[in-house]
Amino acid sequence: MSAANFNLNQNLRIILVRTRNPLNIGAVARAMANFGASQLRLVAPYDLAFREARSAVGATELLANSEVYPSVAEAVADCTLVVGTTAATNRSVSLPLISLPQAVPQIADAAPTGKVALLFGSEKRGLANQDMSYCHWLMRIPTTRHSPSMNLAQSVVVVLYELARMAPPTPATIQFESIAAAGVPAKMETLLRLAQVMHQALECSGYYSEAAAASAEEQLRRLLLRMKLTQPDAEIVVGMFRQLLWKLSPNSPR
Amino acid sequence: MSAANFNLNQNLRIILVRTRNPLNIGAVARAMANFGASQLRLVAPYDLAFREARSAVGATELLANSEVYPSVAEAVADCTLVVGTTAATNRSVSLPLISLPQAVPQIADAAPTGKVALLFGSEKRGLANQDMSYCHWLMRIPTTRHSPSMNLAQSVVVVLYELARMAPPTPATIQFESIAAAGVPAKMETLLRLAQVMHQALECSGYYSEAAAASAEEQLRRLLLRMKLTQPDAEIVVGMFRQLLWKLSPNSPR
Repeated sequence: MSAANFNLNQNLRIILVRTRNPLNIGAVARAMANFGASQLRLVAPYDLAFREARSAVGATELLANSEVYPSVAEAVADCTLVVGTTAATNRSVSLPLISLPQAVPQIADAAPTGKVALLFGSEKRGLANQDMSYCHWLMRIPTTRHSPSMNLAQSVVVVLYELARMAPPTPATIQFESIAAAGVPAKMETLLRLAQVMHQALECSGYYSEAAAASAEEQLRRLLLRMKLTQPDAEIVVGMFRQLLWKLSPNSPR
Repeated sequence: MSAANFNLNQNLRIILVRTRNPLNIGAVARAMANFGASQLRLVAPYDLAFREARSAVGATELLANSEVYPSVAEAVADCTLVVGTTAATNRSVSLPLISLPQAVPQIADAAPTGKVALLFGSEKRGLANQDMSYCHWLMRIPTTRHSPSMNLAQSVVVVLYELARMAPPTPATIQFESIAAAGVPAKMETLLRLAQVMHQALECSGYYSEAAAASAEEQLRRLLLRMKLTQPDAEIVVGMFRQLLWKLSPNSPR
């Protein structure tokens, strides 16, 4: 799950073709930094002011190190696998089209032995047929049919997330399991004590009709068991009901 | 793998809290349209001109139908599971923190029986501790350590992609059993009502020191969220505390 040791870092090239909006280039740089990719290449960007993009939060160095190429051919020259991305609304090109989750293992397989280029087209038109002629195959992020066209930087971040997802875990990553632990479940003796003091407090408050009082404590126990209280929380609630009971009936032991 | 069949459409609420930039709201709307989510809620957006955001390509209707709420409490009132998103750089809050890929099955499990709210904080600061006190647990997108802070709309799109990636859950038999066993989870509005009446009762009983009273209701909310109450059980406990409160302070509405 670790992105810290993202093993595609060395060999992955994100290549943006004829991007129009410098803010999108900045947003792509930020997404790359988030997932540990570092090599950004730009083919004929529309606005050369992209290096000042303010959207490149935490990725100014990555942006400064990006390389500009006049053509796709030159940008992919040193790569061994070239994958184009497409919304695939226009299927005039007869290249293999693979869904992102299926594409990722193939990219991961290729990366240790050579540089992998992922091509993203312009905001309006995506990759041109000419651009696709440099691709080994195409991949598509599985979106809904009625709204297939994604924002450029959003499509990059989804691809990078899916790639980082494949990377092996390392000790450097933030560990979730320990934090996610739900806590020690409450002991039965605590729950029974809670049921008892709740029952007394409710009785003092006039909560029960005479008819209901008989089975009341049993029902409270069932209720408490359904709650899945942790031990610390159960102790807190016992304390609350002790105080309520004491206030309702000052003669009871506190 | 198809997102067209995305079954969380009905019950998923994307909730943006105090978003500053209308372009980000538009970009979130577009991402939602891409992955078949449709219910957008905004808590106290900074700029009310967000409905004109040009970044909502293909999602103008979704944006037009978004709902604005003054507070997190009101935005999550009809939900049964509230999940906060965080870069988790500040670990002061002791809520379970789950990595996105592990969180998704839990969200998918909850969605058939109730509305699920996913909370995203503001661009600069993320969710405040106060916002998190309405969350059952937190989730984090596994980014690199040195660049953990993601663009708002990019974090939404990654979460939606991961949700859409889940195959639709298997037929009604399995779901039926799990619902029967676990019961319908309590709605947030019921839990918030419970926190309020518990707080009043405990206050009347002298449970709180003056110093503790300020953060008391927030702590009660956290306690109740940890308990995983069902809706019928939550209503029972509300009734209990109403009675306790009435007995402790006969002037309060019963």
